[in-house]
Formats: sequence, structure tokens, C-alpha cells
Amino acid sequence: MKFTVSEIAKMLDGKVVGDETITINSAAKIEEGHPGSISFLANSKYEAHIYGTKSSAVIVNKDFTPKTEIKTTLIFVENAYTAFTILLEEYQKRLLGTKVGVEQPSFFAETSSMGEGAYRGAFSYVGNHCKIGKEVKIYPNCYIGNNVVIGDNCTFHPGVKIYDDTVIGNNCTIFANTVIGGDGFGFAPQADGSYKAIPQLGNVVIEDDVSIGSNTAVDCATMGSTIIRKGVKLDNLIQIAHNVEIGRNTVIAAQTGVSGSSRIGEQCIIAGQVGIAGHLTLANHTKIGAQSGLGKSIKKEGMSLSGSPSRDLTEHLRSMASVRRLPEIEKRLKELENIRENSQTFAKG
Amino acid sequence: MKFTVSEIAKMLDGKVVGDETITINSAAKIEEGHPGSISFLANSKYEAHIYGTKSSAVIVNKDFTPKTEIKTTLIFVENAYTAFTILLEEYQKRLLGTKVGVEQPSFFAETSSMGEGAYRGAFSYVGNHCKIGKEVKIYPNCYIGNNVVIGDNCTFHPGVKIYDDTVIGNNCTIFANTVIGGDGFGFAPQADGSYKAIPQLGNVVIEDDVSIGSNTAVDCATMGSTIIRKGVKLDNLIQIAHNVEIGRNTVIAAQTGVSGSSRIGEQCIIAGQVGIAGHLTLANHTKIGAQSGLGKSIKKEGMSLSGSPSRDLTEHLRSMASVRRLPEIEKRLKELENIRENSQTFAKG
Amino acid sequence: MKFTVSEIAKMLDGKVVGDETITINSAAKIEEGHPGSISFLANSKYEAHIYGTKSSAVIVNKDFTPKTEIKTTLIFVENAYTAFTILLEEYQKRLLGTKVGVEQPSFFAETSSMGEGAYRGAFSYVGNHCKIGKEVKIYPNCYIGNNVVIGDNCTFHPGVKIYDDTVIGNNCTIFANTVIGGDGFGFAPQADGSYKAIPQLGNVVIEDDVSIGSNTAVDCATMGSTIIRKGVKLDNLIQIAHNVEIGRNTVIAAQTGVSGSSRIGEQCIIAGQVGIAGHLTLANHTKIGAQSGLGKSIKKEGMSLSGSPSRDLTEHLRSMASVRRLPEIEKRLKELENIRENSQTFAKG
Repeated sequence: MKFTVSEIAKMLDGKVVGDETITINSAAKIEEGHPGSISFLANSKYEAHIYGTKSSAVIVNKDFTPKTEIKTTLIFVENAYTAFTILLEEYQKRLLGTKVGVEQPSFFAETSSMGEGAYRGAFSYVGNHCKIGKEVKIYPNCYIGNNVVIGDNCTFHPGVKIYDDTVIGNNCTIFANTVIGGDGFGFAPQADGSYKAIPQLGNVVIEDDVSIGSNTAVDCATMGSTIIRKGVKLDNLIQIAHNVEIGRNTVIAAQTGVSGSSRIGEQCIIAGQVGIAGHLTLANHTKIGAQSGLGKSIKKEGMSLSGSPSRDLTEHLRSMASVRRLPEIEKRLKELENIRENSQTFAKG
Repeated sequence: MKFTVSEIAKMLDGKVVGDETITINSAAKIEEGHPGSISFLANSKYEAHIYGTKSSAVIVNKDFTPKTEIKTTLIFVENAYTAFTILLEEYQKRLLGTKVGVEQPSFFAETSSMGEGAYRGAFSYVGNHCKIGKEVKIYPNCYIGNNVVIGDNCTFHPGVKIYDDTVIGNNCTIFANTVIGGDGFGFAPQADGSYKAIPQLGNVVIEDDVSIGSNTAVDCATMGSTIIRKGVKLDNLIQIAHNVEIGRNTVIAAQTGVSGSSRIGEQCIIAGQVGIAGHLTLANHTKIGAQSGLGKSIKKEGMSLSGSPSRDLTEHLRSMASVRRLPEIEKRLKELENIRENSQTFAKG
Repeated sequence: MKFTVSEIAKMLDGKVVGDETITINSAAKIEEGHPGSISFLANSKYEAHIYGTKSSAVIVNKDFTPKTEIKTTLIFVENAYTAFTILLEEYQKRLLGTKVGVEQPSFFAETSSMGEGAYRGAFSYVGNHCKIGKEVKIYPNCYIGNNVVIGDNCTFHPGVKIYDDTVIGNNCTIFANTVIGGDGFGFAPQADGSYKAIPQLGNVVIEDDVSIGSNTAVDCATMGSTIIRKGVKLDNLIQIAHNVEIGRNTVIAAQTGVSGSSRIGEQCIIAGQVGIAGHLTLANHTKIGAQSGLGKSIKKEGMSLSGSPSRDLTEHLRSMASVRRLPEIEKRLKELENIRENSQTFAKG
């Protein structure tokens, strides 16, 4: 990032109070600021920080009135938080925008095509009969197999591997070393105890606006497609098995695994390290807590689940509280038994 | 896939009823068929689908008798399911068979050798003193270190990394971005609180017919070998630590981890997200449920285990049912205590 | 490894009894020895093995007195275990030391610099404005983005991906296919149910003497830095989210995940498959058992925790034991209720 305060003010339609010639080269939280950084103050809870911040500039709401002298330069805007986000996005756009053109050596089959504004990094590979849209960035060490279809404005970070026949929409981002379309884990047991691989001839379909983190694996379908619907966000180190379908705008955190043929609904929020068994259906708006294990389908929309095996969150929390009291429960039970024992002894005595 | 129906019928030793000039380009479930696809009907449970299927051809058992008119072309064979599998395998074989030769640039040390029928993709790397068998396919961005020995008919998907001294048998398949032979996680605590790496000088030995999924990590042994026995199938994102041994035909699902020096028996079935502690021995034919945690060796063959810490499956399910009833158990206990309390009061009163 | 026994004795300041011209080419446990291997005997518990070992040489303590004839060559040293470790380290050093120079094709931006003693493998990539120290090894298929700063003596194994602006100290080792600096998982929910990516403009800072396993992912900070302090050791397949800080000399085993903005103390030991929620603080010297789930900060130093949700280890074990007894507890409760029932019936009767 390298902007002057006056350039930023212009970008955000803001008014500067202080030195507008200062150069800004990074963003920081107001309490962690340093010379050259820009921060924002939106919530009055953090106001105390502005009087001592080391940031060179702070974006503030237009109605902000300092209670005492402020040394740093201020930029007054309509909404400080929104303005700050716009600034960061603008910065990121310029940063990513710098990658255009083809670095050599890279491999691009003659039978494939790629739209304008492309970046293909060194040691990237594109196989036969691929159709790739505009403004697509393929970083170094990426591999894209045969017959892959990719929309516009997608970014494939270094080391991403895309298997044959994958279909990807527009505005998708896949982070480093993620694998899309490896064989589903399907083996037929043989009479001699060995297993024979079941051919996995389906593909993966990823719709628009999908983001997938680093070192994640999405397997292809046995037949048909593994489908990641529009707007889905997947974190790092996730396992999506063959023939799974993830519904629109569902968000899944790191290290979660979804087993074969399960269908996750729309707008679900699934925390980290969750395990979802195969052939399940999860209703829309389902929320699942971290480390939960789902063994049954969820038909009712909007439920919150937790635990392994997972249950309704409230019930789960109640049981967990009981488990914590278990040693005490045993003690109380023992006491009742002793009383009973004694009263019997007494009766016999 | 591109076959005419008559070609397929010949391949499967089948008899065609209908148009045998149609071109087939994909496989589909009978209920998801579309023009150009081929399906099969083996189980009469699904018979209803054949009368409305959009597939261009359906493989059926030779004794199949339609109850009403069928528009699609039929191929009558001895066993429809087996025939369909043969077709898929034939298709996959031809597909993979297309990859032969060397793409440039790729790196292959002069001191290494590779048998006939090889494929080496662009940006693949083979270090010194490697002996690689026949019909081996090394996809782009693979790395194979020094002194690696590989049998015949192996496939290394894009981005696989094989460390020095690894030994791999015949007919092995390793999927994208998996790492074989990284250092075991061994550190000796020092007086000042820091840790010093213990040199990891062993290797990994993978026997015949092993399949390993994407983004999995198999560490080398400290001394000796980490061993993956014949016919083992590993899914994606699995962790196999140093000096582990996985017995013949054992199957392990995604995101499971096996800690250092543990020995898993033959023909075990281990579900996803399981954790197995170090230095354990698991008997043959052990079955472990998803998300289980094993802290103790299993000596008896054929047990089914579940839970963390894991136990016999039946006992585990019984305890889990009790846990669900715990809040109610507490209530019942409280009731008994109240009765006792009252009767004491009464006695005193 | 290829040393004669006399070379090894010289290296370890030891005295040989037996044939000192034998060539040693590997290390083995004394009970797994074979011709050409060297072993050690430090613990008298294993003494029986030395009389039948197949190792060509064994390193022993200087006060070792055989009880009967030993056929193998002995090397007497001050401390057999220490001497053996020194030998392994020396061997490993020579092994790694062989990698120097630049293999082609590789990509190195003109605006970047790299110190002496460097190795850059084929198909490795170094972007703009990077400053890389001395004796750094970058293996094939590695990607290093822009503005990355790396100290001396670091090793990047094949396929490692380092994003822009990462800062790495001295003596760090990162194993194959690990990703450093991918975007943090941060999305702002929009009115229409979709999510918008929050720009992730921070970086990752890795201090000296850090080791990171294979296929691990460390995300960059939203603003500021994700920090891995000096001496930290991370295993394979670990998830470190944005803005996390891992304290000095903390060790984390495979498949563990740390959520955004959590701060792990110094000298912590965290087992495998642990999940740590976001925005937590863990005190120094905390120990966490495998598969635990941490939902709360730990303020007291030196605690041992286990379970999901995690608790003090002793309490957790006590509760788990109670859970195992739960079906029996229910039975005892039922018995008391029956007695009560009967006595009521009796009273009424």
C-alpha cells in the first residue's frame, strides 16, 4: 500500500484535518498503529486509543468531536468502518491487478483457450480442451487437467490442482495446494479380502462466487457431479467427498469433513473439525458447533446442533453439564444406597 | 467416453435391442440419465426408472422382460452390474492410457532410470539414483527425490512429493499433493526449554496395490521404515506418523491420524476423523467408528469400537444413550433424595 | 550413509574393539540390525540384544563389559546415546549439504536477492523484492511470493507455498506442500444472505528455529501479523488461522486447529486433533490431550486439560470413568426407585 492521505481522502470522499501529504503504506488497528499506518475509529468504545495512536492517519465518522488535542491526521467520512473497508478493498484490487501476462516456462495446450486479462505463472499447466474465461489468474505450479471449464475473474493460487472435467463459475478463488476432483474413495470388497477401485467417472461443479481455502480436497463424483453451489465459502484442510452437494451461501470452517453423497442445505454455518456421515440431508440454515459428529439427517430448518453424536444445542449443553456433575451424582446415589442399607440393617437388627 | 452402442455390446458380449449406431459419451444413474449417457438396471427395485429414463442406452440382465414399451436402446448381458463396471473400467483405462511420453520442461537425473510406457508431465522432477518400473505415470509438478524405487503401473497425480529412499511396489496410485516421507515429528527437549530435532533417517515402504488420496501425509521412520502393506487404501487428508505399520487390505477414511510407532492389523476398517495414539497395536479385522479416539491396544480380533476414548461399540452406544438421559437421571435422583428428606423430617416431626 | 568404523570412531572420539575397516551404510535399532548397519546400546535393559545383533557395529558406553562373546564390532564412547545422535546429525548434515546451486528452469525475480550457499530446485519460483539469507535451500515446485524476507539456514521442502510479505527467521524448516500466508477465513454477511470477503492485508511472521510439517496451513492476519514464535514445532496437517500467536517453544501435533486471534502461550504441548476456538488466551506450559476441544481461555499456567469441551485432566478422567459406569448407575437408581415403590405399596397395602 502506498497512498498519500490526500489520495485516500479523495477515494473515500472525506475531509482531511492535518497533514495531507503524509504517505500511508499499511493498515493497522488503532491500538497497534505505527508511523505510516492508517486506522479507523467507528465505535466510541475505542475512542481513548485515538489520543495516543501511533498511526499516521485515522478515518473517523464526520460527527466525531475530539475531547482533547489529537496529533495524528484525521479523515472525516460519512461512515468510518465502511470507508476503511472500501480502502482495503481498493488496495487489494490494485495489488492483485498487478498480475497480468504469461511467465515462462509454462504449459498451455493448443486446444485450450483463455480470455483477456489473464495471468499464467511460471510452471503452471493447462491441459487439453479447456475453456477459461476473462481476467483469470493461474499462479505458479497450478495444474489444470483436460476439458476444464472456468468462468471469468477466477484466481487459482500457487499449487492448486484441478482434475479433468471440472466446471467452475465466475469470481471463484481457490487457495494454495487445494485439490479439486480427485477420485472419490470407493472400493468394492473382493472375495480374497482385497479391494478393487470403483471407477470414479463423475466431476466437480463449482458455481459462482465460491471461495476455497488452502490444502482442501474436493473429490469428484462416482457418476454425476459433486456440487459446490453459489456463494459457498470453504476454509482450509476440508474434506468434501464424492457426490456431496453444498447448498448456496453455506460456510464451512477448517478441518471439517463431509462424507459421500451427503447434501448440505443453503445458508448453513458449520464450524471447524465437524464430521458429517454419508448419505445425509441437512436442512437449510442448520448451524453445527465445532467438533460435532452428525450421524442423522436434519429435516427441520434452522436448528443448532452440537456434540458427537450431535444433538440439539440446548440438550447437548444440558447433558454436558450433567456429565461434569457425574462424579457428584454417583456420590449422592451411594449415599441413598447407604441409608437404605442402614435402614434394612436396622429393620433386621 | 466415446463409444457406439455396438462397440459397447461387443466389449461386453451383449445383445442389442434398439439403435446400435448411437454414440455414448458418459455414464449416469438410470434416474439421472440424459441423451448420450449409458446406464444399467440390475436391481428390479429400480425397474420403474427404465420406462422413463433419458439415457440413450441401458445395460440389462439377459432375463429382463419389459412390462411395457421402452424407448431407449437396451443391451442384454449375463450380469448388468458386472458388465457396467467392466465398461467403466475399460473407459478409465483408455482415458489414462492416453498419457504417454515426456512433456518439457521436466527434470530427470541422468543417474535414474524409468521403464517403457512412461508418462512424465511438465515440471515434474526425478532426482538421483531412482529406479522406476514400466507404465508409470508422473503428472506435472510431482517431485521424486533421490534413491527412490518404484514398481510397475504406478500413477503419481499432480503435485505428489516423494522423499528420498522411499520404496513403492506395483499398481500404486497416489492422488494430488500428497506427501510421502517427510520427517517424523520427533524432538528432544533441551535444558533451556527448546527442542532439538531428532534426525529422521528411516524411509517409507509402500507395497503393491496401495491407493492414497489427496493431501495426505505419510512420515518416514526415525530408523527403519514406515510401512503401508499390500492393498491398503488411504483416503484424503490422513496423517500417518513415523514408524507406523498399516496391515494388508486395511481401509482408512479421510482426516484420520495414526501416531508414531503404532501397528494397525490387516483388514481393518477405520472411519473418518479417528485418532490413534502412539505405540499401539490393533488386531486384524478391527473396525473403528468415525471420530473415535484410541488410547489402548486392541488384542482381540474383529472388535467394533467407537467413542473417544473408544470402547466396544455396544457399550459405547449404551453409555451414549445414558448420557442423553442424564438430565432425567438427575431429576429422578433428586426426587428420591426429596422423599428421603421428607421422611426424615416426618420421623423427626 | 557411508562411513568406515574407524571414521565413525574418530568422529565420536571412541575406541574400536573389532574390525574397524567395515563400511557402515545405515542406522538401525539393535534388535533390528542387519549387515552394514550401526546401532547403539545405552540402556542395560536392552543388553541381551547385543549378543545376537546383526548390526555390523554397536556404539556402547565406555564402562560396558560383555558377559559373553560378541561377534560384532564395538565402539566404546563416553555416552553411547549422545554419540549415536551426533553420528546421525553428522550424517544428515552431509546429506543435506549436498544440495547447492541452481537447477534450471527456475524462476527468480531480478529484484530479489539470495545469500551464498543457496540451493534453488527446478520449477521453484521466487517473486519480486524478496531478501533471502545464506545457506537457504528452496526445493523444486516451491513458490515464494513478493516482499518475502527469509533469514539464514532455512529449508523449504518441495511444493511449499509462501505468500507475499511473509517474514521468516533463521534455521527454519518447512516440509512439503505446506502453505504459509493464505487469506484468513473472514467474510461479512450481506443483506441477501451472501458473504463478502474481508480483505486480509496482514502477513505471517515466523521467528527462528521453527519447524513446520507437511500439508499444514498458516493463514495471514487480517491486519497485523499471525506470529509463530521462536522454537515452535508444528506437525503435519495443522490449521493456524488468521492473527493467531503461538508462543516460544510450543509443540503442536498433527491435525490440530487453532481458530482466529487465539494466543497460545510458551512451552505448551498440544496433542493431535485438538480444536482451539477463536479469541482465546492459553497460559504458558499448558498441556492439552488429543482430540480435546477448548472453548475457554486458560489463565493458570501449567494446567493439563482434556476432553471436548476440555477440562482439568483429572476431573475429565473421573467423569469419563463415571460415563462408563452410567448404565450401571441407572440400574442402581432404578433399584432404589423400586424399593421406594414397593415400600409405598406396602404402606398403602
